[in-house]
Amino acid sequence: MSTTKSHRLFGEELIVVNMGLASFGENLRREGATVVQMDWRPEAGGKPELLAALDRLRASDGELRQEIAKANEEAVGRLLQARPVIAGIGRAGDVIPDMRSDHVLHAGPPVTWERMCGPMRGAIIGGLIYEGLASNADEASLLAASGEIAFEPCHHHQAVGPMAGIITASMPVWIIENTAFGNRACSTLNEGLGKVLRYGAYSGEVIKRLRWMERTLAPVIADAIALHGPVDLRVIIAQALQMGDELHNRNRAATSLLIRELAPCLARAKADSETKAEVLEFMNGNDHFFLNLSMAACKSALDPTLGIAHSTMISAMARNGTEFGIRVSGLGNRWFTAPSPMVEGLYLPGFSEADAAPDIGDSVITETAGLGGFAMAAAPAIVQFVGGSASRALAFTREMYEITLAENPAYRIPSLDFRGTPAGIELTAVVASGIAPVVNTGIAHREPGIGMVGAGLVKPPISCFEQALTAFSEQYCHDHTNDMKEDNAR
Amino acid sequence: MSTTKSHRLFGEELIVVNMGLASFGENLRREGATVVQMDWRPEAGGKPELLAALDRLRASDGELRQEIAKANEEAVGRLLQARPVIAGIGRAGDVIPDMRSDHVLHAGPPVTWERMCGPMRGAIIGGLIYEGLASNADEASLLAASGEIAFEPCHHHQAVGPMAGIITASMPVWIIENTAFGNRACSTLNEGLGKVLRYGAYSGEVIKRLRWMERTLAPVIADAIALHGPVDLRVIIAQALQMGDELHNRNRAATSLLIRELAPCLARAKADSETKAEVLEFMNGNDHFFLNLSMAACKSALDPTLGIAHSTMISAMARNGTEFGIRVSGLGNRWFTAPSPMVEGLYLPGFSEADAAPDIGDSVITETAGLGGFAMAAAPAIVQFVGGSASRALAFTREMYEITLAENPAYRIPSLDFRGTPAGIELTAVVASGIAPVVNTGIAHREPGIGMVGAGLVKPPISCFEQALTAFSEQYCHDHTNDMKEDNAR
Repeated sequence: MSTTKSHRLFGEELIVVNMGLASFGENLRREGATVVQMDWRPEAGGKPELLAALDRLRASDGELRQEIAKANEEAVGRLLQARPVIAGIGRAGDVIPDMRSDHVLHAGPPVTWERMCGPMRGAIIGGLIYEGLASNADEASLLAASGEIAFEPCHHHQAVGPMAGIITASMPVWIIENTAFGNRACSTLNEGLGKVLRYGAYSGEVIKRLRWMERTLAPVIADAIALHGPVDLRVIIAQALQMGDELHNRNRAATSLLIRELAPCLARAKADSETKAEVLEFMNGNDHFFLNLSMAACKSALDPTLGIAHSTMISAMARNGTEFGIRVSGLGNRWFTAPSPMVEGLYLPGFSEADAAPDIGDSVITETAGLGGFAMAAAPAIVQFVGGSASRALAFTREMYEITLAENPAYRIPSLDFRGTPAGIELTAVVASGIAPVVNTGIAHREPGIGMVGAGLVKPPISCFEQALTAFSEQYCHDHTNDMKEDNAR
Repeated sequence: MSTTKSHRLFGEELIVVNMGLASFGENLRREGATVVQMDWRPEAGGKPELLAALDRLRASDGELRQEIAKANEEAVGRLLQARPVIAGIGRAGDVIPDMRSDHVLHAGPPVTWERMCGPMRGAIIGGLIYEGLASNADEASLLAASGEIAFEPCHHHQAVGPMAGIITASMPVWIIENTAFGNRACSTLNEGLGKVLRYGAYSGEVIKRLRWMERTLAPVIADAIALHGPVDLRVIIAQALQMGDELHNRNRAATSLLIRELAPCLARAKADSETKAEVLEFMNGNDHFFLNLSMAACKSALDPTLGIAHSTMISAMARNGTEFGIRVSGLGNRWFTAPSPMVEGLYLPGFSEADAAPDIGDSVITETAGLGGFAMAAAPAIVQFVGGSASRALAFTREMYEITLAENPAYRIPSLDFRGTPAGIELTAVVASGIAPVVNTGIAHREPGIGMVGAGLVKPPISCFEQALTAFSEQYCHDHTNDMKEDNAR
């Protein structure tokens, strides 16, 4: 249909409002018509089984809807009440629950050595060399494939790790306590950027740094924390959000605030002056030093939300580089997974998309708690990674209010007139709207042994959420159907 | 004129566009009419002598207009090229040029003891007690009034001081070097908030703190800077603008960045561990610690712009609590003054506007260099002082682009898509538009000996700029008339 014909048809200039497939509107626009494209998608992608599940969960006359609302209030309430503090630093094998010396913990949902991506294999090779269980990469690979090492998710041991997320028994870990609920979460100390274990590098310098962190960095900081007392991470995170951080890809302010808070106690710590200076130099040299604390704080805040019957709140998201997985509060420990997506981002000089591993790491726990991409409006510098503007940063955060249960009164965003960050991702809202959580992240090289190649934005596969919705409907609508049958049988 | 009559008059609903006095439009609005108020003011307040001066300076056929443009390009170019670094710390009497032991330096343009405001008198009393020249407030007041003490502006000695801005010979001062031009600027070390000398307090705790700063704080930091080498303030200021500071009333990020930068060298400094811990605690306990560095950096950046013939750029603004004064590049060392205005702000508990001293301090040097109120968009937390929103913070900065010569490519504002801060206030633009520079500031108690009572926003009296314009016209149009006469006589 040409615009000439449409003019003849309607007798005057046509303004077309197009919904759904944008290509219909594009064709008319090329012909010179004025086309307004509606930002509309059919609910739940128009999939009948999901629409049916949504109908069952949202039925206005059902008890289920009320039970879900009540459970979600409880779940997001626990998230907002969290009070994470640094309780200390310990040896992973000593302080991480149920961690054995043959355990290697990794990021994301469970995955076997055979199915692991390059950077995770690289980090495991490095971890086994660091532990003295192998003397080179070939030995380490053979050992990893032998079945003698037990690979388990950090998430199954009250821990989180960025990127590959490898934790071995000798590594020092932060011990974060959520004092509102008494639970703990652990994470390694951040190594810095470039050739580092978490991005899959395992050369001599990587192992040497890990040993220095174990023998020098960790004991000195542990001593300072003992002198200082628990460090309130909620206060640091709240301030950092006023200072351009979103606490995932940007941690410069939080790192600065941590250093100034600990520096007096570091000065009083037992080590000699030169050692203390080296510790302060290491912290000052790494703007991501706070990242692992942000992650463990979020993990400690979210763990009390897992396992609340009827809650549709997302209690965990994580990627192992092969799969992206989510856990839903009301569905307990089950993971709902789909293949890890690729990251849309900027690459370091000499690297391109062809070098990139798929999305990897437990760091998406920050978004799950309402930070990271959800707090992008606080950190417009981040959207520069993908050529975005300050207004795009605001738009990312604003969209996340549509799929979350609450606004966090402790974590406020200046550019949104101090509105609280969107917190508590709600499963039915994600599936119904098709709006996926927005995630800021780093990009690892796809091969083991290389390291970081870029950073950018990624959206989790929506099918994780669709599977979870189906499972939720099966578990809870089934219960209700049974309840109702029982009621009728009486 | 009622709306009924106007309906009869024009036969249909009236939409009124009102210019000038808003009350005309308000009357109609009360009658139910739709009124659009134009944001328009007559140029230069409609004052004939100022309009004539503007006409002479802006005449499109005159050489003068071109000479002014060229001179302003040079002036703002020097401001943008500035590279302020911390060169060290010294004793005021040793390192401030032409400072004698009977000198007391103060904020703002020249002022006599008799005309000084309460907080400045209070700070001078404290300074004389601190120097051991008086043992109590009465003795100090007598000495100050005796004529034996020479009061001179900090600005006349390549120095700046916040609030009362008192510098006596024994005080330690930062030495800032503008490495692009080789000039230096000095400022005291910031004492913290509450009962402090710069707000006019002079009790025992104030003097004790000043002595500790002289004997402990300054030597330890001086040692750390010697180990570190020059500290690049341009880099810290640029980063702090990305982290919610505007470098006048908010210096939390810059203070944090300075601490993390110096901490390793503080660990290596000669003092014992407990002393170093106390120094780090003092810095960590005062989010305004960086303010005096921001001020001296701006002073060092602006001094090379003073005295460029034909330039209409403002090279200094300063207040002594009695008068607000400005200096114009092309008019050299002359001050153009008017009574200090009151600050619109929020008060600490127990205080009100009735307690406030007029606007005081050299800290407005930050606005003169394009920071402070000019960078308000970077620090939306600041407008909360006056009940403003994030959008009001953006509006403040946007308006300042109308009266400035350039955008500083080194100092960028995230929320304005990384646009450079408005830099280099231009005299004719201020007078023609009636737009006064916007200034963030603290508020001192009007009586000596009390201290800080609040913080807020203030606008310099426009008459300083009007006087300067008249003087500029007299100096330069006179020259040109003479030149032209000479030309004609040949």
